[in-house]
Amino acid sequence: MFETAEIGAKLSPKAFSKLKGPLRLGLIELQQQVLTADFPVILLIAGVPGAGVVDTLNLLNTWMDPRWIATTVFDTPSDEERERPLFWRYWRSLPKTGTIGLYLSGWYEDPIRDQATGKTSASEYAVQLQHIARFEQTLSDDGALILKFWMHLGKKAQKRHSDERREDTLVGLRPTDTSLALPGSYDALVKAGATAIRETMDDGAPWHIIEGTDDNFRRAAVLSILRDSLTRHLKQRQKAAKARKKELKQAIKKAKKIPPLAAAAKDENILDHLPMPKTSDKDYLRRFHALQKTIYDTHKLARAAGISSVLVFEGWDAAGKGGAIRRLSYALNARNYKIVPIAAPNDEERAHHYLWRFWRALQRKGRLTIFDRSWYGRVLVERVERLIDQNAWSRAYAEINDFEQSLVRNGTLVMKFWLHVTPDEQLRRFKDRKASPFKSWKLTEDDLRNRAKWGAYEAAVNDMVAYTSTDDAPWHLIGANDKNYARLRALEIVAETFVKALKHHKAGREARR
Amino acid sequence: MFETAEIGAKLSPKAFSKLKGPLRLGLIELQQQVLTADFPVILLIAGVPGAGVVDTLNLLNTWMDPRWIATTVFDTPSDEERERPLFWRYWRSLPKTGTIGLYLSGWYEDPIRDQATGKTSASEYAVQLQHIARFEQTLSDDGALILKFWMHLGKKAQKRHSDERREDTLVGLRPTDTSLALPGSYDALVKAGATAIRETMDDGAPWHIIEGTDDNFRRAAVLSILRDSLTRHLKQRQKAAKARKKELKQAIKKAKKIPPLAAAAKDENILDHLPMPKTSDKDYLRRFHALQKTIYDTHKLARAAGISSVLVFEGWDAAGKGGAIRRLSYALNARNYKIVPIAAPNDEERAHHYLWRFWRALQRKGRLTIFDRSWYGRVLVERVERLIDQNAWSRAYAEINDFEQSLVRNGTLVMKFWLHVTPDEQLRRFKDRKASPFKSWKLTEDDLRNRAKWGAYEAAVNDMVAYTSTDDAPWHLIGANDKNYARLRALEIVAETFVKALKHHKAGREARR
Repeated sequence: MFETAEIGAKLSPKAFSKLKGPLRLGLIELQQQVLTADFPVILLIAGVPGAGVVDTLNLLNTWMDPRWIATTVFDTPSDEERERPLFWRYWRSLPKTGTIGLYLSGWYEDPIRDQATGKTSASEYAVQLQHIARFEQTLSDDGALILKFWMHLGKKAQKRHSDERREDTLVGLRPTDTSLALPGSYDALVKAGATAIRETMDDGAPWHIIEGTDDNFRRAAVLSILRDSLTRHLKQRQKAAKARKKELKQAIKKAKKIPPLAAAAKDENILDHLPMPKTSDKDYLRRFHALQKTIYDTHKLARAAGISSVLVFEGWDAAGKGGAIRRLSYALNARNYKIVPIAAPNDEERAHHYLWRFWRALQRKGRLTIFDRSWYGRVLVERVERLIDQNAWSRAYAEINDFEQSLVRNGTLVMKFWLHVTPDEQLRRFKDRKASPFKSWKLTEDDLRNRAKWGAYEAAVNDMVAYTSTDDAPWHLIGANDKNYARLRALEIVAETFVKALKHHKAGREARR
Repeated sequence: MFETAEIGAKLSPKAFSKLKGPLRLGLIELQQQVLTADFPVILLIAGVPGAGVVDTLNLLNTWMDPRWIATTVFDTPSDEERERPLFWRYWRSLPKTGTIGLYLSGWYEDPIRDQATGKTSASEYAVQLQHIARFEQTLSDDGALILKFWMHLGKKAQKRHSDERREDTLVGLRPTDTSLALPGSYDALVKAGATAIRETMDDGAPWHIIEGTDDNFRRAAVLSILRDSLTRHLKQRQKAAKARKKELKQAIKKAKKIPPLAAAAKDENILDHLPMPKTSDKDYLRRFHALQKTIYDTHKLARAAGISSVLVFEGWDAAGKGGAIRRLSYALNARNYKIVPIAAPNDEERAHHYLWRFWRALQRKGRLTIFDRSWYGRVLVERVERLIDQNAWSRAYAEINDFEQSLVRNGTLVMKFWLHVTPDEQLRRFKDRKASPFKSWKLTEDDLRNRAKWGAYEAAVNDMVAYTSTDDAPWHLIGANDKNYARLRALEIVAETFVKALKHHKAGREARR
């Protein structure tokens, strides 16, 4: 793989100095354009020690405006990081739209190190790389420009360099920082690197292999690639934005219906088949009592066992999400849960991938994160209201499954509730709200607008269930015309999930003995 | 102190049910107003076990829209929290403008617990309470509505309650959650509570002592106080906003000069007395080399010793802040520092106290946080451009000192640099920038506008140095007409600070042996 980067490629000082001016100027102009563009730039630099990783970092910070480049080098994870899914620390570090995130080894550091030092098997490594590839694809699909550089030296050249403290007159006098280099013997490191490059080479997140024998050559290569990629990406994004706008406009103009993806037969919808049971007040009080106690007790154990939970409440307006969440919260220690209400994103959230704010909201180990509306807005309101194009929402099912799988891999319990009411019942509740001085504020224009699009939402819900109800993160559809029943049912599911998880946990512990 | 809350105050169910409707309605209307107001609400509830802390929390979440109330209960600090100044976790939890932050015990939990269980001396406790009072004052001065409730029970009543699992038919059936109550014997807890109330009772953050013997009485009392306080605060803030607007408008209209606070004699300014030394290129290279090595080596030790650093770079436009920061970064391991460029705040930042984003940016133990511009914007650009009124910026000196003292108490090294160039030199650099294709983007309209207000900025810098240069967090004024000299001087100061801190650290360690 690295043959092309072991040929001793050189660039004479004269040739470099001729290139330098226009290159630097081009990059400065491009950075100005990126500032107002609708995507972030992710630059990742890795490679063998001595090949110029740190020098490249410094050069970029010198040539471009460092105020728009945030450099990240991951350190030993903190406990806040360890107590969340693996990629949490990477998500929270991501640059926002219009800025550049510069990573030294980034999310490759741990996997490559563990592979190069023999801590992981080949198949474990393959799985890690697959997760990275999905992560990068999620970001690049959303428009991020991702460029990855592997700074290379042949074995002999590397030996020569590793003993030297190289002086760098262009950008300072900084010694090569060996503590930043990837570890392992040369051969093991290069083998692990080659595998990483092969497995995560993608159109949306390409690797560029650069020979680092000669500083001028390396610098010119990195900077030219950066310039060309920025130029191309800016053009593509502009074009894509125009096309997207046109498509959305036409679709709205023609009032084109969004075809359901998963419906088996015309107008067949899973929600139509949902039973609507009732529970008497007497039964409700009796069972509520017992369930609260079960939840309180089992969650105490789950917290002690470090089992985190993520709960999603979705449903029609006035279906009773808030009420159900509140009843659940009464059964929990306030130290142990966080309710995350989801409204329109703020500007920091809008400047990131749509999943970013949900990653950010995840609580520490053993806690419940309860989402009142969630990332499913992507395939519900954003789809129905045509806030995004069809590519974006049809891609979202896989992205969401990926996200939830990250939670599941971390041992997190994922429970998703759709509270279903019939149109008649919703109307009755709207009227109730309008009539009640305590509730009239709950009724908004949006509610009425959403109601008019009932059919489109039904199709979207059907698709959502079809594509995102998985074994590990199932959807629980609850007929919620009767509030007593709906609240009890939700609590029942939570209790059952805790009981099952604890049993599983106990069995696992005993098996390990 | 608690005599008035041990009289067995009661409210009949009939009287409560009469009050209930209007109260609830009033709160709902007020919450709607808060949503668009320019301040956050901080509600803190503490008290003796069994007095209804959790029930009050649940009631508030039931009566008001829980989507705008974020409940926070602090848990054992994570290492990310432990590795930062004590109040970091409290700052990062603060509600934004238009929302309500509900705290169970909040920042009082640890100090009251440690006092009630005999872990702290009376004087240690007094100091902790003083820090809390300053923290709350900073927030209330900025407009936050802070209300603190102490739920009380007399000794006998508490004994009676503590054995019961109280059933609460209004808001659920939740048992009193004893793990949320403050610990210690009744007498010790009440004594510590009384001290806390006495020492942190303030007009801007008052304590309300509520007897919790009777649920109806307690609920009515809390909710009425909340209603009345919200009403009053909303009115006051509206009035204050009008007055502020008028004052600023008049000041701008009359082009009223802002009088310097600290100048001893007219037009005397500390910057006029600053020497402007020069360093030859040869000397520069030689010493730069040595300094980089010293910084690299000493910071390695500082990192190992867990000594954090906060660096602030301020100065005239084109004074060379960016260049100096870059040279410093070359001397550091990229794992160990973060450069934080400060531009206009985003909307999340604007919805918090101005210090919030700086607290949030602080890095973990042993790292450097390097601010390229900083919180001093409050007393520089915001003062000079009249973005805030005189009360706000003259108050800011104390707030800033408080913030920096929080860092210092945590063992953090605070280094502040003002890079000074003369007007002539600045003009020369602006012309240079305009002429250079690599630098012209650096020159903005703002730069020219700021230049026109040189005198006003000089007065502001003079005041800033007068009021915020402290022993622990001194200002280093550097004559920066010569870039070689300025860069070297900044690095020298960093190196000296590290060397001194390490000596101090070593001496402390030996003394403890």
